[in-house]
Order: sequence, then C-alpha cells, then structure tokens
Amino acid sequence: MNDFVMHPIGVIHSPYIVKEQPPIQASRSQAVGEVEVFPEYAPGLQDLDGFSHIILLYVWHEAQGFDLLVKPFLDDQKHGIFATRYPGRPNQIGISIVRLLAVRDNLLEIEGADMLDNTPLLDIKPYVPDFDIRTGTRNGWYETRKV
Amino acid sequence: MNDFVMHPIGVIHSPYIVKEQPPIQASRSQAVGEVEVFPEYAPGLQDLDGFSHIILLYVWHEAQGFDLLVKPFLDDQKHGIFATRYPGRPNQIGISIVRLLAVRDNLLEIEGADMLDNTPLLDIKPYVPDFDIRTGTRNGWYETRKV
Repeated sequence: MNDFVMHPIGVIHSPYIVKEQPPIQASRSQAVGEVEVFPEYAPGLQDLDGFSHIILLYVWHEAQGFDLLVKPFLDDQKHGIFATRYPGRPNQIGISIVRLLAVRDNLLEIEGADMLDNTPLLDIKPYVPDFDIRTGTRNGWYETRKV
Repeated sequence: MNDFVMHPIGVIHSPYIVKEQPPIQASRSQAVGEVEVFPEYAPGLQDLDGFSHIILLYVWHEAQGFDLLVKPFLDDQKHGIFATRYPGRPNQIGISIVRLLAVRDNLLEIEGADMLDNTPLLDIKPYVPDFDIRTGTRNGWYETRKV
C-alpha cells in the first residue's frame, strides 16, 4: 500500500523542552501553550473560536522508532503498542484534546499542553461531544493497572 | 518544516463503496466493518481486546485536495476547515471512535464504521474516558446549526 506524505500546517509551542517533562495526558495538564498555524492556513481557523475544546493532531517528532510491545507510562506490564497511547508507534501521530483559550489571527492560546515545544502540527478539529464521547466503556489494562 | 511520511499499518473494510454512502460520524453509525492489520504489526494488538472502544486514525484517500472554507455536512453555512470535521483538509487524516466487537488474530470486527471500504489505516489507540472525555464544552456553529 502507498505511503502518504503529511505536510505540517503549523507548530505547537509548549513549556516542555525535553522528553521527560510533558505530563502523561492533556487531560492531566494545565500547561498553557501556543499553537502557531502557518499564515497560509489561517483562513481555515474561521469560527474555531466558538469551540471551547479542540483536537490537535501532531507528530511525535522526538520519538525514535517503535516496538510492538511496550510498557506504557501508567502500567508496569507490557502491552501491544496499539493497546497503549505510547508515542513510539509505527506512525507517530499524537492526539490531544485541549482547551482553546483565545484565537488571535494565526495563533491559538491553549490550556492542557502535553507535547514538546516545537511539535509539528498536522491538523486541528473541533471537539464535539456528540461525536467524541462514549460512555459505558470497558478499559482493559487501564482499569486494573497497578501504577 | 519537513514533511512526514506515513506508512499504512492496515486497511479498513466497510460496507461503503462510494463517497455518498458513509454516515456523517461514527457515533451515528451501526455499520459493522473489519479492520485488517497487516500481519507484521499484529503483535501490537496484544491486550487491545480488553477495550470496548478504539480510536482509528486513517487517511481519507478519496478526498480531492482542500479548501480553507467549507460547508460541512451538518450546516448550510461555510466555516473554516479547522472548525469542521470535513474530510477535504490539508492533511486528510480521519479519526473515528468505534466499538470493538472482536479480535481474531490480525482482524478486528468493529461497529460504527463511517469510512469508505479499503481506507488506509495509520494507527489504532484505545479509547480511554479519563483521557478523551471533556464535559461542559461550548460547541460553536454545531450548537446553532440549522440542518
């Protein structure tokens, strides 16, 4: 099957400079960051400011290759990479749901940053509860973890 | 900024053959589909079957280019592409949260398919309410839409 080439639309600025710093998930972070959308894409931000939360898709640019079995940050047992949110994966695409504090031209101020500074941004989508919330879930190893 | 090359890890089979068929969101779909993970990645599925819902990241391979202002399926007004979930976007990465019905070797049976048959798969992540649910959101044009 063909490869697909992704071209960053911007860059995410955060307080986290080295890999050990970011919190484990955006939902556990109150860090403020700034999403810089490259000016040529700025018209695509119209009406985004009506949404309180947005989904960022980005590249874990510092991850080095991948293993198919990994020990996630929140457990002491190995699991298949696709049963975890671990960054080192075959296609190193991260997703974070963050609070949108303000939109100024091509800059988005966000709360809940959990990615490294200078992370390449691939996409922004509005978070829509009707689309994105599932309840009554079973949560595998995450429910019974020891960490 | 450098481009990033994504290499599909599998393919999603669904009942939808042409673009007009898929439902607008996975949350509105009860269609059963099958995710075929290429055999070399199958070890990465270990323990995924403990999760009732998974997030699929895939390529909207039939989308032709993009506009920065689009009229989404659920409104009659144009909005910035990043304020919509419309497929034709700068990096055509779709995300769908689907129910995981069964795992058999490298095949996942899913409910809630909303993508075309033969969609290239980039990643699978477990859906974890602690990470993925936000409440008390503002939902922009989606709240006041007329369609």
